[in-house]
Order: sequence, then structure tokens, then C-alpha cells
Amino acid sequence: MKNIISTAVLFLSLPIFGQTKEDSIQFRRISTEILNKGKSYTELRDLTKNIGHRLSGSEAYEKSVKWAEQKLKEAGADKVWLQEVIIPVWERGTESLKIKAGNGKWISLKMLSLGNSEGTKGKNISGEIIMVKSLAEYDKLSSDQVKDKIVFFNYPFSQSYVLTFHAYSDAAVYRSTAASLTAKKGGKFAIVRSLSSAFDDVPHTGAMRYDKDIEKIPAVAIGNTTADELETLLKSQKVTAKLNSNCGMKGEKLSHSVIGEITGHKDKSIILVGGHLDSWDVGEGAHDDGAGIVQSIEVLRTFKNLGLKNNHTIRVVCFANEENGVKGGQQYGKTVKENNEKHLFALESDAGGFSPRGIALEMDESKIKQIKSWSSLFLPYGAYDFEGRYSGTDIYPLKDMGIPTAELVPDSQRYFDIHHTEEDTFEKVNRRELLLGATIMTQMIYMIDKHW
Amino acid sequence: MKNIISTAVLFLSLPIFGQTKEDSIQFRRISTEILNKGKSYTELRDLTKNIGHRLSGSEAYEKSVKWAEQKLKEAGADKVWLQEVIIPVWERGTESLKIKAGNGKWISLKMLSLGNSEGTKGKNISGEIIMVKSLAEYDKLSSDQVKDKIVFFNYPFSQSYVLTFHAYSDAAVYRSTAASLTAKKGGKFAIVRSLSSAFDDVPHTGAMRYDKDIEKIPAVAIGNTTADELETLLKSQKVTAKLNSNCGMKGEKLSHSVIGEITGHKDKSIILVGGHLDSWDVGEGAHDDGAGIVQSIEVLRTFKNLGLKNNHTIRVVCFANEENGVKGGQQYGKTVKENNEKHLFALESDAGGFSPRGIALEMDESKIKQIKSWSSLFLPYGAYDFEGRYSGTDIYPLKDMGIPTAELVPDSQRYFDIHHTEEDTFEKVNRRELLLGATIMTQMIYMIDKHW
Repeated sequence: MKNIISTAVLFLSLPIFGQTKEDSIQFRRISTEILNKGKSYTELRDLTKNIGHRLSGSEAYEKSVKWAEQKLKEAGADKVWLQEVIIPVWERGTESLKIKAGNGKWISLKMLSLGNSEGTKGKNISGEIIMVKSLAEYDKLSSDQVKDKIVFFNYPFSQSYVLTFHAYSDAAVYRSTAASLTAKKGGKFAIVRSLSSAFDDVPHTGAMRYDKDIEKIPAVAIGNTTADELETLLKSQKVTAKLNSNCGMKGEKLSHSVIGEITGHKDKSIILVGGHLDSWDVGEGAHDDGAGIVQSIEVLRTFKNLGLKNNHTIRVVCFANEENGVKGGQQYGKTVKENNEKHLFALESDAGGFSPRGIALEMDESKIKQIKSWSSLFLPYGAYDFEGRYSGTDIYPLKDMGIPTAELVPDSQRYFDIHHTEEDTFEKVNRRELLLGATIMTQMIYMIDKHW
Repeated sequence: MKNIISTAVLFLSLPIFGQTKEDSIQFRRISTEILNKGKSYTELRDLTKNIGHRLSGSEAYEKSVKWAEQKLKEAGADKVWLQEVIIPVWERGTESLKIKAGNGKWISLKMLSLGNSEGTKGKNISGEIIMVKSLAEYDKLSSDQVKDKIVFFNYPFSQSYVLTFHAYSDAAVYRSTAASLTAKKGGKFAIVRSLSSAFDDVPHTGAMRYDKDIEKIPAVAIGNTTADELETLLKSQKVTAKLNSNCGMKGEKLSHSVIGEITGHKDKSIILVGGHLDSWDVGEGAHDDGAGIVQSIEVLRTFKNLGLKNNHTIRVVCFANEENGVKGGQQYGKTVKENNEKHLFALESDAGGFSPRGIALEMDESKIKQIKSWSSLFLPYGAYDFEGRYSGTDIYPLKDMGIPTAELVPDSQRYFDIHHTEEDTFEKVNRRELLLGATIMTQMIYMIDKHW
């Protein structure tokens, strides 16, 4: 393509008047600053390449705490501190899953134990695989049919939803409950088709949980093409699986969320922007959620660099332990309550560093209406979607306290190709997309700070 | 991120009534069909991996003609034919650019001759480099200052524009005119900073042209980081450049555009959808414009597969020679005129296979108003932007005949990282993004077919 667009400055010619004109000028200053001088992309390279993945409890996570502290200081925070959080420690260790069709040879499958799952304590556990395509199908099986079997929950991630988060929501119950369901009927362990939009063999980890008073049997994930192949095999013959793994919960530990802020010039009520500093223990935690961390720091830096005198305190929170406990978010909420800290608004970025399309809002209708009245300001930056009624996981405790919460809405098409996998690397993040997300976030924080 | 969005079916609850309800149901059928059963992604893999790049005049281009013919037949076209087009043949051959700072060693730079440029006919041409940052700066130089020099046009691709096409438009004149400007003042050849949004050393080719009666001296492109390094060098010392290249125009040749259609059930007026089959001679021409080709074929296939009885003829055109001549588009327009073929509407996809954001419209205001009145139907599919007033290069001859024309508007953030480079490969295309683009295109063609 080589056509020269004649309407190059179309977006500059939007009607602007009065208050809106001043905001429009500031919006442009913010985007020009970030798209040209933003540091989130190089900071993300540093975080992902020099620290890498950083599961709660790992040494790498503790390194990332020091890293975030340093970056917040460099960004110009007036005050930076660590908030103590007691986090669960889960470790993966070695793991292998093999299958044997009929009397054939054992074949290794690419797999990942699900996060929080117990393993086999280094022993081989094997049994015949039975496959179900849905919970309804599993419900029909008797305990006799499941006893001593390996249950393969082969529920597909739907390609039909336009927003991939809907497909994720639709299939998530399989990841979270497969082990407990299998244990209830006497099965040995569970295999789950990954929550993945990709047509590859990459397994996706992610949190699972055990029901109370249920034997903690293992659950593992396999990639989509591996699941397809296993499904085909099972149609014609008996297949045995053998799991050997060492993963499991290793107690609790004191760790930290990292907080930095610039003090409000008019009052001390708080506008929060954040993401989660931890990641799963595969890949580099680039989109999930290194992106949200560096974007949030970019917001603070941009206020400082542009001399945008913030009325309220703007606070960046790098939450600990979102992935397998949300202890950072819970502790933050508890502290807000204890200290009676007034929060005006909280915005999280935790849906990937892709090209932004809007901000989801979870607050009363009058506030949503007001934010929507600003939408013509956001449109030239590609943000048009203020329809979502949800917000980030870490700020749900704040939402439950009645604080208006929100989440950046990036394009969702690529996210579940790489989410919670070895493929979630820096190379999958595009510089301009990441910076544009930080731009929308800064613009929204600017509007809230000025007009609330 | 692991939050479960509670509004999973929000987009299904949009108000639908009367005519709109029927259209809304068809929109959903179209997206479900394409997102699940669409073949454009696998067809693109086939085109890019088994044929690869396919510059006009090359053997590969002729292979792609046969390929497109076959794919249109497989998609269910009632009629497939080739349209003769006389195309220019430009060949690259070998090429090298070296520089030497002061009395240092010769260092090779990563470079690409610009498309349509003449080379050095295998001889070394060398001279001192002088750098200008803008046309204004170049205008101030006398012929004495430029004579026998190599002019380095070091104009940056702006990061400030939100839509990267605006930055491309802004800088494109350097690529197209550098050689002629340099020749006018007696320079030996021109080096141009690539039209690139990336922070790497990848050179971007693309079409240049010679003014009449001007000596056809060479023009080459270097990547952004190479340009940065050269700029730094030039600040402190004299730098000599040496070019050796064999590129040049090799006359003309008979070639073809490929056309397939499904006949209208009510009348024979034509709705056109297309892209260009040729590409530059580097990379795989995946985003530019393999994507547009396979998406256009997807439109036709979807009408057939869903049994959407088209009132008008839906015609897919795979244009020849967009990149360095637009001869396919020109020939098509000429033939339309000669045969007095009535065209209702023409839609091109030639801005990359990225997540779609809308459709740009070039037609009279009443028609634009009508299309905009459909926008609530498109919104659940992420298409909200019907503001652009341009259309595809290949269909400009139709636009000039008063036919309403349009172009798919994909997200633009990543496009100019890879445009016209060795990096424009299949791996850079995301399956769901490509299919979603084909979805929006099919939906638009469905609406035009039904309501015009």
C-alpha cells in the first residue's frame, strides 16, 4: 500500500471549545510526550530480559520489587515505599507427562502443571485417560467410571466470540475446577485443554483451586494441537497417561507490593493507577503484566515531565501476587480501610500491552455518564469503548468499598495466544501499542484529576 | 490477568429491531463462520511460504496469478478470469553500500535500493556524504555544494501521529523525490532514511520516481538505527559512501490481474472487493498485501458458504502491479469504462491484516451518512471508525469515475515497522486479526448488497 492520505490532520480539526479545548491540548501534549519520549518500552525490555518471569515467592520477584522501587524513584515519585504482603509460595519443579496408545511406546507431551496444583511428589502416577468435552458430559459419569482414571477435560476455547476475554471467561471453569471434579469421583489426575486461542502446542498455565476437603490431585494443561492429537488417538484406542511432577505449595512468605506517588497539590485524596508486578513462572510476563507496570509508571513520569500539576495524589501501585492469590490487592484494600485513605478512582492495566480501544468502567451510572461525555477527546487516540463494566482483579477490593474502578481495554485478539505461556515475551509487545496504552491511561487520569 | 468478565454477552444485548435485527443476525452468522471456518489465514500461509514475495514481472508473481485463480475457484466463484495488464519490470540484482569515516575502513551498511531506482550498473560510485534534515534545508544548498556529493535525506518518520499513515504521508516525499532532487544539483546518488516506525536497522524499500529530463541517479534506503549512526558520524567527521548496484527498469511485460465473481441474483451491477497480488521483492508480502488478497477471497467464500443470496454481482479483484506502477488498477478502470460495467461500490484491503477498526469511505455525503447509520451493527465487531475519506490505491481510477470507494482501516501501530521490508512475513500476521478484518469486509459488502 502506498496511498497518501489527504486527510492527514483530520483528527486535529475536531470541534474544540472552552474547557474541552484546554483538555484537547493537554491530551495532545500527553500523547506527543509519551509516543516520543516514553520509557515504558525500554523499561519493559529491562524488566523482562534482565529479571524475566517473576512468580510470587521467587528470587526474581524480589528482584522486581527492587527494580520497581528504583523505576518509580527515577520517574519522579515524591514518595516510594513497600507494602508488606504475606503471599503463598508455589513452586513448579520438574514435570513430565507421557502417553501410550494401546501397547505402543511412551510419548512425551508438552505440558505445564496448572498454578497452585499439587504434583505427584516425584512418583509416577498413571492410568487410563477418559475424555469429556464439557462439564455436562462429566456430570453424567459415575464414580465407577472415573475411579483411578485420568480425566481429560477437552473443552475448546471458543473462536466465535469477538472479544477473546469472553471465550476465556467461558472456558475458565475447566482450569479452576478440573482437579476437584476429578478427585470427587476418584480419578487420579486431570488434564485440561489450555485456555488458548492459538493453533499450536503451547500449554498455558494459570491458577486452579481445590475445593475444601477434597484430595489435592494434580491438574496439568496441554496446548491446543496436543489436545487435538490426543482427542484423535482416544477415538480409536485406549490411551494411558503417566505424570511425574514436583510442584506444590511451599507455605507462605513475607513479600511486598511497591507503591510510589506524587502528592496532590490541592488535596490528598488518591487516584490510583497500577498493574501487577508478579507473573507466572514461564515466559517473561511481558504482556501479563509487565506492560501494566511500565504503563502505570509512565503515567506518573508524564505528569512530572509535562509539569501537569496534579490536584490529587497520583499513586502507582505495583501489586504483588495477582496470579496465584491476589494477596497484594487484598492487602492494599485492607490498608486503605484501616488508614481510611480516600480514593477517588482506581485504574488497572492488566489485559495486555496491545493497541488500546478504551477503558472499562465499574462505578455508578452518573460517573460513567460523565466519563462517556469525554469520549470525543479520546477518539483521536483510538479509544472509543467505554462500555465494559469490569475492572482489574487487584482493585476489586476497592470496588467492593464503593470506589470507582476501571481497566484499560486493549485489543484482545492476540492476548490468549500467549497468555500464561513461554511465549509471553518482550518480542510480542509492540512499542507504539504499549505507549499508546500508557497515553490513554494518562489522559484518563488527567481528566479524573481535573474534573472530579 | 485472570478476571472473569461478567458481561460476557453484553454485545448480544444491543437493541435490535425490524430490519436491523435481521442484519444483526446475519452479521453474527458471518463472524461465526469466518472466525471458525475462515481459510484466509491458511491461504496466506500457503501464498507467503510456498510462493513468497512476488514483485511484478517476477516468476513468483506469475505463480501467484495461477494460485489466485485456483483459490477463487475453490472459494466458489461462478467465473474466474485473467485480465491482461502491461506492467513495468524492475529488478534489484546485487547491491552494496559502504561508508568510510575519515581515513578509516569501509563498513557495509544494511540497505535496499528504492523500487524503480536505477543502479550503478555494477560500477562503484562514491563521494562525500552531505546530510540534510528536511527539504527546506536541501533547498538552501547550492548546486556547488551538492555537486558530486551523496545526499543523505535524514528526515525522521514522526512518532507523534497516532495514526501511523499520517507519519508515512508526511515523510513519503523524501522517498519519492530524493533522487531527482539530488540529480538536479549534480549529486551522485541519494540515501534516504526509511519510512519506518521501528527502532531497528531494517531498510524499507518502496516506489520512487524520476522527474522528466532528469538524470536517473540511484536512491537507496537505510534503516532508522543505521541512519542514527550515520548522523552521529557525520557530526564529527567527513564520511565517504560507495554504492554498487545492478537494479533498474527492464522494460515492460504482459501480465495479469486475477478476477473472480459470483453472479448477482437480481441484477448484474458489481460490488468489488480486492487487494493487490504483487508485493515488493523482500520479505513475503504478508501484510502488504497478501492479507488483502486472502480477505477478499474470504468475502466471496463466505457468501457462498452461508448461502447469502447476493442481489448484485460480487467481484473479487486481485490487482497486478500496485507497488511500482498501479498498472493493474489503471487497466481495470479502463476496462470498466470501455465495457460500461456498472459498479455500485468498491472496497480494497491494503493497509495490513491487523485488527480492524473501521472502513474509510470516499463517496458522496448522503451515502456516507447512510453507511454511518449502520455503525451500531459494526460496533460489536470492533469497527467504529467510518471517518476516513480515502480508499485503496488500486480503486482510485474507479473513484475518479464517481464510483463509491472504500478501504478497510486496520489498527496502524505495527504496520510501518515492517512495511516493504524483509520483516513483512506470515509470522507477523495474527490469525484472529486477519479473520476479523475479513469479517468486517464481508459485513459491509452484505449491507451494500442488500441496501443499495
